[in-house]
Amino acid sequence: MMKRIAVVLVAVATLAGVVASMGPASGQANQEAAPIFVTNIPPGYRDWILVSVAHEAGDLNDIRAILGNDVAIKAYREGQLPFPDGAIIARIAWNYVPSEENNKIFGRPQSFVAGSAPPWYLQFMVKDAKKYAATGGWGFAQFDKDGQPGPEADLNKCFPCHQAIKERDLVFTRYAP
Amino acid sequence: MMKRIAVVLVAVATLAGVVASMGPASGQANQEAAPIFVTNIPPGYRDWILVSVAHEAGDLNDIRAILGNDVAIKAYREGQLPFPDGAIIARIAWNYVPSEENNKIFGRPQSFVAGSAPPWYLQFMVKDAKKYAATGGWGFAQFDKDGQPGPEADLNKCFPCHQAIKERDLVFTRYAP
Repeated sequence: MMKRIAVVLVAVATLAGVVASMGPASGQANQEAAPIFVTNIPPGYRDWILVSVAHEAGDLNDIRAILGNDVAIKAYREGQLPFPDGAIIARIAWNYVPSEENNKIFGRPQSFVAGSAPPWYLQFMVKDAKKYAATGGWGFAQFDKDGQPGPEADLNKCFPCHQAIKERDLVFTRYAP
Repeated sequence: MMKRIAVVLVAVATLAGVVASMGPASGQANQEAAPIFVTNIPPGYRDWILVSVAHEAGDLNDIRAILGNDVAIKAYREGQLPFPDGAIIARIAWNYVPSEENNKIFGRPQSFVAGSAPPWYLQFMVKDAKKYAATGGWGFAQFDKDGQPGPEADLNKCFPCHQAIKERDLVFTRYAP
């Protein structure tokens, strides 16, 4: 019993420390720091409807699927821009690999498929115009296959690059009918 | 309005022709020919859950998504083989094209995306062990972007090739988690 109380006390103290360290950003003394990152994997995303697919060559060399929750898919299909609050776009990436079993049957190396999960396995864009006002209304997130959030250095690159496609509300992927 | 009626009439006539040309196979004069092809696009397939993605290089040069209806996805996720009756697997293919708008932002040609629909746009495998007994329990289908069924010459190639992956019930695509 005493041990349990001790554990709880340590947990409370740790939390207090975390909260304290999240204090006001410089120059915003009277205001809470605005969140720009998403910290939890949106539940059920693997069952969402497909937006499109892509092969990202270059350094990443992955093959990816872009999915959307119902709010995002509705906006995509109706051509609604900007995306409304509540829209979430998921991007799953897999290492881009030749399928040896398929190619054996086809007789030549022509089939490239989804392999294992790279460190940038899951990414999400969550629309909340107020909450993520500092990054164009979108919260950005990245998780590896164990559900660990991506390094902040990676996340800091999301908005500056997505900002370039402002005419489609920062969303690169077009809906593939 | 007249134009619409004309289109419908052409469609009906085409369909009648297709049905007529599907008459009894030689040597089965007293028996109905066993169907091996699927003639209708399964409704709602575009909302189905993603199985995986692939790039088919070579002659086709497409990028594709494989989707499954609920029966198929359940079997995939539970590793159930053979797939039960009612399982339907959809394959949507798009021409594999570089995204000029993305590459302009990235500064080099690294983004390949889903382009327009090739003639082999949609394919389906429908599981019905009895109905499609002649082709391993699967009915095969292909449709172009206007919903026109693929030429029989194309369809006749489905089963002989899929037969090579018998250990996974004739289904090439593995589920990508």
